Amino acid sequence: MREPARSGCPINMAVEAFGDRWSLLVLRDVMFSSRRRFRELLAGSEEGIASNILADRLKRLTDAGLLARDSARPGQRATYSLTEAAIQLVPVLTELGTWGIRHRTTTPRLRVRAELLANGGPEMQAQFMDELRETHLGHPARPAPHPPVTERLASAYASLPSD
Amino acid sequence: MREPARSGCPINMAVEAFGDRWSLLVLRDVMFSSRRRFRELLAGSEEGIASNILADRLKRLTDAGLLARDSARPGQRATYSLTEAAIQLVPVLTELGTWGIRHRTTTPRLRVRAELLANGGPEMQAQFMDELRETHLGHPARPAPHPPVTERLASAYASLPSD
Repeated sequence: MREPARSGCPINMAVEAFGDRWSLLVLRDVMFSSRRRFRELLAGSEEGIASNILADRLKRLTDAGLLARDSARPGQRATYSLTEAAIQLVPVLTELGTWGIRHRTTTPRLRVRAELLANGGPEMQAQFMDELRETHLGHPARPAPHPPVTERLASAYASLPSD
Repeated sequence: MREPARSGCPINMAVEAFGDRWSLLVLRDVMFSSRRRFRELLAGSEEGIASNILADRLKRLTDAGLLARDSARPGQRATYSLTEAAIQLVPVLTELGTWGIRHRTTTPRLRVRAELLANGGPEMQAQFMDELRETHLGHPARPAPHPPVTERLASAYASLPSD
């Protein structure tokens, strides 16, 4: 059961939907690291998310319409997909990353994808969102004028040492 | 004392700086409603923030370099100003508002300022940021080609009934 919203302000509604730090970080990992299963999200977390918090946030994000959980049969592992509403958070996460790069000390490897997206402007964000729609919603992507953004982000990340 | 950051990811760093719902809502009110004193922020809160939470978030935001507290003498009321880092959150808050308008049910009066800013594009955001720099940092604003954004947002808000 969801509590009633505290106000009808759109910023408040956005913050109520996903605005606690762990929810945003889980969305970030599904979006940028293509991790879609509980174990992958747990093992890959740079911030060391605890398993009970991850389970809670996956449920909250599913209830809020930001993630869709496939109906895994018993014994199978569930896969989470971004919904259209979550895919439309790409500009929010890009602006958060831009702010973090400018105003905080960040590490090169964890920064490079946000940097590429910020420098790529609205066109690159739109192409990335279309690729996410193909992967998560099964929509055919428009023919892309450039190599897939997903691959460009992944190879820039992989080219830098972890630290 | 601040705890060490959990990772050097720019999105994580941004979320650690202001990414709990009350911090973001306090920043929103200082930015869009020009409330700069404790009592105004408490009395004007659409979400009914509690006074102990408001006091804690004002302190946290000041420690994080997002608000500056003037040195009020005893018996005087302190005034909070946005820092340059906080003013650079205008694009983040605009994107959050855009997402909230699109994906949640919001009320017209609380929505109208986010709508105007989203529709005004990067130029209007840049002008608004210059106006905030003038008000909060004392920078002279560049001559604006249009009526001040601050006034346009305030009059649109005032023209709609509260509900």
